[in-house]
Amino acid sequence: GCLEFYDKHQHLRYNPLRDSWVLVSAHRMKRPWKGQVEKPPEDNTPRHDPNNPLCPGSVRANGEVNPEYDSTFMFDNDFPALQPDAPDPGSDHHPLFQSKAARGVCKVMCFHPWSDITLPLMQPAEIRKVIDKWADLIVELGAEYTWVQIFENKGAMMGCSNPHPHCQVWASNFLPNEAALAERCQRDFLQKHGEPLLVQYARMEAQAQERVVVENEHWLVVVPYWATWPFQTLLLPRRHVFRLPDLTAQERDSLASIMKRLLTKYDNLFEVSFPYSMGWHGAPTGSHLQEDMSHWQLHAHYYPPLLRSATIRKFMVGYEMLANEQRDLTPEQAADQLRKLGEEHYKMKKT
Amino acid sequence: GCLEFYDKHQHLRYNPLRDSWVLVSAHRMKRPWKGQVEKPPEDNTPRHDPNNPLCPGSVRANGEVNPEYDSTFMFDNDFPALQPDAPDPGSDHHPLFQSKAARGVCKVMCFHPWSDITLPLMQPAEIRKVIDKWADLIVELGAEYTWVQIFENKGAMMGCSNPHPHCQVWASNFLPNEAALAERCQRDFLQKHGEPLLVQYARMEAQAQERVVVENEHWLVVVPYWATWPFQTLLLPRRHVFRLPDLTAQERDSLASIMKRLLTKYDNLFEVSFPYSMGWHGAPTGSHLQEDMSHWQLHAHYYPPLLRSATIRKFMVGYEMLANEQRDLTPEQAADQLRKLGEEHYKMKKT
Ligand SMILES: O=P(O)(O)O[C@H]1O[C@H](CO)[C@@H](O)[C@H](O)[C@H]1O
Ligand SMILES: O=P(O)(O)O[C@H]1O[C@H](CO)[C@@H](O)[C@H](O)[C@H]1O
Repeated sequence: GCLEFYDKHQHLRYNPLRDSWVLVSAHRMKRPWKGQVEKPPEDNTPRHDPNNPLCPGSVRANGEVNPEYDSTFMFDNDFPALQPDAPDPGSDHHPLFQSKAARGVCKVMCFHPWSDITLPLMQPAEIRKVIDKWADLIVELGAEYTWVQIFENKGAMMGCSNPHPHCQVWASNFLPNEAALAERCQRDFLQKHGEPLLVQYARMEAQAQERVVVENEHWLVVVPYWATWPFQTLLLPRRHVFRLPDLTAQERDSLASIMKRLLTKYDNLFEVSFPYSMGWHGAPTGSHLQEDMSHWQLHAHYYPPLLRSATIRKFMVGYEMLANEQRDLTPEQAADQLRKLGEEHYKMKKT
Repeated sequence: GCLEFYDKHQHLRYNPLRDSWVLVSAHRMKRPWKGQVEKPPEDNTPRHDPNNPLCPGSVRANGEVNPEYDSTFMFDNDFPALQPDAPDPGSDHHPLFQSKAARGVCKVMCFHPWSDITLPLMQPAEIRKVIDKWADLIVELGAEYTWVQIFENKGAMMGCSNPHPHCQVWASNFLPNEAALAERCQRDFLQKHGEPLLVQYARMEAQAQERVVVENEHWLVVVPYWATWPFQTLLLPRRHVFRLPDLTAQERDSLASIMKRLLTKYDNLFEVSFPYSMGWHGAPTGSHLQEDMSHWQLHAHYYPPLLRSATIRKFMVGYEMLANEQRDLTPEQAADQLRKLGEEHYKMKKT
């Protein structure tokens, strides 16, 4: 059938959320790998390190002392890429030399007081607190800013410079490229097909079951049909939801549970703390709070770099940077591998 | 003035070749780096390794024996992502599950018989031979295929799995995403402004001199106004040229010379064999050979990952993957650093 065809023959798949194509060449997994081998993530982070600026009681770069927090903890990024007061460059508007003002804020949020824990090892009630804070941030920063990007870089391989479990929030007075793309694609789809893109997509994936990794009453995780990273996933509510603050208490508990299950599978895949970048996309905020955003569906993307093992990653380089994204196994194969993995964390089994 | 403003205040810049924006936050360079440190590139590659499948006289994965080549050497990629005979997936064309056939070929081209040499250390006459082969490839594969992507992944950090100096060529029966974007942007620009985008751009940069790295009679290398990678450059002919085969003998010699100068500066920046992905973009081929392509200007992109030193790279992760590309120094600062570097290779000075 269709899946067998996909395993054997290279083909292109369309990403309707980004209006672009991905080249799927599953037969490439046969090639031997003689390139760079990554350092496996370190597994000896101390629970508390007084010199780590993210720990409770530590002194940060700006001289402030962290409280002895026992849940989540939020502070302003000491080296923000976005500052609230940047003046307008006032460009001469030549079409080849266009610039414009960028204003915003960057915050950091610690998930937990311990440095040696990660989301999949946290209790559902602890994850729930992270989710509540995320929702609060969208309300608070979304009142002023057009886009509030919540994201987590996990693991040194993903440029994360501190092992303490944390995420970042960069809010801006402009729609970033990826947000603008998701906005346009979802808007066009609703107009053309009469139903929000990701609402229809979640329903069809739940029915097909070919790319589902985990699901529960309120949420669905799939390796999307158009995934580019080997084990990329898309986390979707079943109900039509615009933004994180719209989630009910029940949906938040359910989200904590499905995140724990997904991230446990990720860690179990290569028996390593699985690196990734993840982030939330919801309807734009700021002045858009007053607009009709019914084409939007809340979702989270997980982009993990590993391909073959804990130390062999997928490189998105030459052809991918200059021509087209390319993947070496089918999304269905990736979903199948993840689905079959147990939901007990490998670290829990060993101890 | 303007440059001082750019150094101090974050702002967005528009990339007219990709119709997207980059966030420039030069003040971010002040932040200390405690994240992943890369292995510096190895410097002990033997000149000849009989077990390296790219060396003269070696046996490759498919059992073929390489000739005792003494210049460039081309062969079919033994693990191609694109094969000429892939059948059509015949998708059901549901808007959320679209696939299409992808056909093509993948070749590898060795630059030189020695494994311990790189382009900047090769003689101009040897580089000229590489350029001639590139032009031949566009003629040969372009007769059948819509897009012929020539690219070089240099260094283990860029996913290069063999230290022997080489590039790859992936030709396809479709326009890859990046090619389609460059096609659309250049077409729109010519229509709107009456001059090809990159012809006008090269002229203006040559005049401004703010972002020029190296130049000669026929070529110009700039850190483009919209660069995303820290030391990204754009290599442009001064004359309007559609494709590599259109270059005159003089322009090819001149190209060999400017490549050697640019790549020597790259190596001299951190005194290391500078990793990058590079590739050529010229007017589409195949059936497009018969069309009016006057909006196209031939160019090469260099995308190097290093930011602060030989071992500290820029990570394009969380915010960049989910929201917007972001850079930590201005293109003008990067151009200035590169421009000031000597044109004698650091390895030549030491010996
Ligand atoms: O073909 P190579 O050199 O083994 O592979 C390298 O380049 C390819 C084309 O950019 C990428 O798809 C691979 O991820 C990378 O490792
Ligand atoms: O802010 P951090 O964690 O130091 O930095 C990391 O995340 C940022 C946002 O994705 C990136 O711009 C940096 O390249 C990366 O190293």
